[in-house]
Amino acid sequence: MPKVNLSLQVMPNVEDNRLYEVVDKAIEVIKSSGVKYLVGPMETTMEGELDELFAIAKKAILACNKEGARRIGAVIKVDYCENGVTIEEKIGKYTEKQS
Amino acid sequence: MPKVNLSLQVMPNVEDNRLYEVVDKAIEVIKSSGVKYLVGPMETTMEGELDELFAIAKKAILACNKEGARRIGAVIKVDYCENGVTIEEKIGKYTEKQS
Amino acid sequence: MPKVNLSLQVMPNVEDNRLYEVVDKAIEVIKSSGVKYLVGPMETTMEGELDELFAIAKKAILACNKEGARRIGAVIKVDYCENGVTIEEKIGKYTEKQS
Amino acid sequence: MPKVNLSLQVMPNVEDNRLYEVVDKAIEVIKSSGVKYLVGPMETTMEGELDELFAIAKKAILACNKEGARRIGAVIKVDYCENGVTIEEKIGKYTEKQS
Repeated sequence: MPKVNLSLQVMPNVEDNRLYEVVDKAIEVIKSSGVKYLVGPMETTMEGELDELFAIAKKAILACNKEGARRIGAVIKVDYCENGVTIEEKIGKYTEKQS
Repeated sequence: MPKVNLSLQVMPNVEDNRLYEVVDKAIEVIKSSGVKYLVGPMETTMEGELDELFAIAKKAILACNKEGARRIGAVIKVDYCENGVTIEEKIGKYTEKQS
Repeated sequence: MPKVNLSLQVMPNVEDNRLYEVVDKAIEVIKSSGVKYLVGPMETTMEGELDELFAIAKKAILACNKEGARRIGAVIKVDYCENGVTIEEKIGKYTEKQS
Repeated sequence: MPKVNLSLQVMPNVEDNRLYEVVDKAIEVIKSSGVKYLVGPMETTMEGELDELFAIAKKAILACNKEGARRIGAVIKVDYCENGVTIEEKIGKYTEKQS
């Protein structure tokens, strides 16, 4: 299977002042998974095989539940290319010149 | 595991005039999976366990690839509730009075 | 400008038991706008000109704020076709045979 | 109106080998708009007032059309907070330690 890009945004339904703390737990799941990833302001993007990334997304959603969110909205975006796709090929040229 | 709602939108990169035909193949994968589903104008929503729905989403993406799309964008939205959530509880009251 | 399809999902950060009630307020904004729309389990899709639909989306987000959500996540999907696109052309064939 | 975060992903329906080139045109629209922004692998996030960011998103979609995409899918995510929200408060702590 080719490497895909998969981004995950979690929106745990918790009190406003606990939001970042709970989202951080989801990001920790991604971090500890060992896949290449990049944290962005609205989602974290991972690079890997689709099955593996879906499994991480699931663990990240469940981590929010464990932190007290009984309801969680998640948005997952997949960029599938039959020859694989990397995070680098998409943002390499931009990483030096952000505003 | 509770039943979740998961919606899938596929955007196969094919010639404009083949778009609906290829998307239909993805919908057929969902239809033949046996889960409860509802086709909408921008996504198809399914009801079931998260693992099962991720597996169907993957098959639907690969079905687009098989139809000739070498690149496919997909958007997956998950509504996770620890006690489960149904399509019916969310749109039951609206299905009679659409514009 | 051609007619586009735009779908809106709002996720107001309110207590779980007020969620549907607040989302209903957003849907009321859409309903009272006069555009063609279809309520789905994860988003409501509208048909109209892009400017008009963005304005409705904004009003719907602000309606959630008025209902007490100090923070709201929203997902908007746009299907833009230079010759216009209708909800009907995308789901007409499916509306008779949903599971 | 408070500053919101709005992310935009465009998926112009063009030949695979023109994809990045057309997406770059959309990013140029954002860049030349003057708002704070961050290019990510699956979307570009902007910071500003909602009306302003919707107007930029529209221009970015139309820029893809001008480049030859007759059909464009776009995903817009909004993070609305009544007291405003910044890109920095969400990723500041992560920008030093990406994998």
